[in-house]
Amino acid sequence: MPSPVRFTLLAADPSTQARAGLLTTPHGSVETPAFMPVGTQATVKGLLPDQLVAIGTRMVLANAYHLTLRPGESVIQQLGGLHRFMGWDGPILTDSGGFQVFSLAERRQVTERGVSFRSHLDGSAIELTPESAITIQEALGADVAMCFDHCPALPADKQTIADATARTVRWAIRCRDAHRRPDQALFGIVQGGAHEDLRAQCVEQLLALDFPGYAIGGVSVGESRAEVLRAIEATAPRLPTDRPRYLMGVGRPQDLLEAIARGVDLFDCVLPTRNGRNATCLTATGLVKLRNAVHKTDSRPIEENCPCPACRRFSRSYLRHLFLAGEMLGPILASLHNLAFLHRLTAAARQAIQAGTFAAYLNGTLELLGP
Amino acid sequence: MPSPVRFTLLAADPSTQARAGLLTTPHGSVETPAFMPVGTQATVKGLLPDQLVAIGTRMVLANAYHLTLRPGESVIQQLGGLHRFMGWDGPILTDSGGFQVFSLAERRQVTERGVSFRSHLDGSAIELTPESAITIQEALGADVAMCFDHCPALPADKQTIADATARTVRWAIRCRDAHRRPDQALFGIVQGGAHEDLRAQCVEQLLALDFPGYAIGGVSVGESRAEVLRAIEATAPRLPTDRPRYLMGVGRPQDLLEAIARGVDLFDCVLPTRNGRNATCLTATGLVKLRNAVHKTDSRPIEENCPCPACRRFSRSYLRHLFLAGEMLGPILASLHNLAFLHRLTAAARQAIQAGTFAAYLNGTLELLGP
Repeated sequence: MPSPVRFTLLAADPSTQARAGLLTTPHGSVETPAFMPVGTQATVKGLLPDQLVAIGTRMVLANAYHLTLRPGESVIQQLGGLHRFMGWDGPILTDSGGFQVFSLAERRQVTERGVSFRSHLDGSAIELTPESAITIQEALGADVAMCFDHCPALPADKQTIADATARTVRWAIRCRDAHRRPDQALFGIVQGGAHEDLRAQCVEQLLALDFPGYAIGGVSVGESRAEVLRAIEATAPRLPTDRPRYLMGVGRPQDLLEAIARGVDLFDCVLPTRNGRNATCLTATGLVKLRNAVHKTDSRPIEENCPCPACRRFSRSYLRHLFLAGEMLGPILASLHNLAFLHRLTAAARQAIQAGTFAAYLNGTLELLGP
Repeated sequence: MPSPVRFTLLAADPSTQARAGLLTTPHGSVETPAFMPVGTQATVKGLLPDQLVAIGTRMVLANAYHLTLRPGESVIQQLGGLHRFMGWDGPILTDSGGFQVFSLAERRQVTERGVSFRSHLDGSAIELTPESAITIQEALGADVAMCFDHCPALPADKQTIADATARTVRWAIRCRDAHRRPDQALFGIVQGGAHEDLRAQCVEQLLALDFPGYAIGGVSVGESRAEVLRAIEATAPRLPTDRPRYLMGVGRPQDLLEAIARGVDLFDCVLPTRNGRNATCLTATGLVKLRNAVHKTDSRPIEENCPCPACRRFSRSYLRHLFLAGEMLGPILASLHNLAFLHRLTAAARQAIQAGTFAAYLNGTLELLGP
């Protein structure tokens, strides 16, 4: 049976590993590289689907962990599935809950069978297994489901990471065996920390399972920037060119570009919306902090020539006022801008890759962005 | 000099006092009866100007009291005035601060000169006088400014109300004398509580000042519904037919219709947005409380056949989930619906007035709305 989600490689940069491609899903296609806004609780915080479409969002992420706790996947299934529930007609990817179980859940116990823990909402006892993570994600009905992985927090000794990586592979086999839904693809997740040998081994074992896409997991868990790059470099070149590569949890513009240069196609991160809610805006020349007094009568938009709804109409002075007054519209507008910025960044990267000029684009953009 | 804001009476209902009219301002015209969403701090909470336009908002209100405290009218003036600051190209009315001074400010002292008080934000000492209220509103640059009035909280004895009403008239003279801005109209405010004689006297004295519009103030300050109706009945019939009549602070659908029947043209109230933030929605058949468990798997929109962005795309089940999860999108969507509901209500009233069928519309609509 052909996968409902396919990746077509359209261009490869001659001097880096950067790629431009097209991801096709049952709910439309996505030009890559692409950034996916995070809709943890079936909503990208503060934004309507139409607003997302208007700033260039093509695919969003939602979290199976949060949604099984509240409102429960059976509610969403009764309402016609996640697309209809959240009013998003485009592609959706659901995270399996692996990352959240290891970052949010309380009184966690890991066994070969799965993970038992207490809900961070009400303390109720919950178990997630590879099989139940698939059942939940099939009920949600996203275009892409993720394998349930063991994602240890760093720093951790190599043996701990090796054990988690081996378990991730065993759980991936169980996920693949459990997965039935024909209009949903299941992606594998590569673990292995910053260890090249563990990453290489994990890739080799997952490739035998022939997933239609692969994620680089185990980043954004407390490691250094250099370790992230090592993890990507140990993973991406070993993945098949005809499958999409998704770096989980990375959204800092500089990191995103470095990852694109190393062959990554897809990204998600709460950074643009979380920073937006905290009045911190992404621009091509670095961060703009809207609460700063320097913006008191600043008539400039967040970023000159940005076509987003925040920059088209509002001054930094107004946005500063909204944040100081505790008005919702501040987080809304800053989130819109930050997401629009990342969408423009990946679109420009794609254009440079197709033009064969990505290396120059990368260097110039990183220099402007600053450290 | 002709007023920059004019009112044209287009139709009068044969069996009630209801009127349909057109209010023209330097920033466009408004079909009346009309409801003005409240943008206290230069933003209708959680909503972008484009979203307001899409649901039928034509004119918004902002509060001089809040804006002089933060960010200060000089900031807004430097940024090109309130329209440009908040990105609203349509008509704006600013409340003078009278109501807020008497409801929010601390350690208030009223003299003939004006009101001294402490800011509710930081306790700083502030004085508002008729002259400074006009200076602030001229700096903000709304299409309509309001006189600075003395608005006593009810219940109050008749002498207290009589004194406040007489002071309101004396202050109105000072406001009129202070007001210079040629592209801004200044409306008078009628006080007098629920006392017909005080209202009548206040109207008579204000009419001598020939304002281009008149507000019915002193309601929504703790009085009964019957007292509001008495205040309207004592005021509206005495006002000239060629001037707009604005009932301040009323937004409950039933009250709005009763006021339209008594000849009121304009309304403002925080009710639709405040209720929206609290998950309470206005519908033609009464309130819908989105947090209620009965909506857990309710696939219906807030209101069938409502064309607003909340009802077009989202179920009560999803909206309930948003509120229980503490997601911003809940308040946003419920506010959009509630404002759209009031705009549809006033538009339907207008249509009925023009068709000569307002009395039947009123009775049928009130019966459906319930008490």
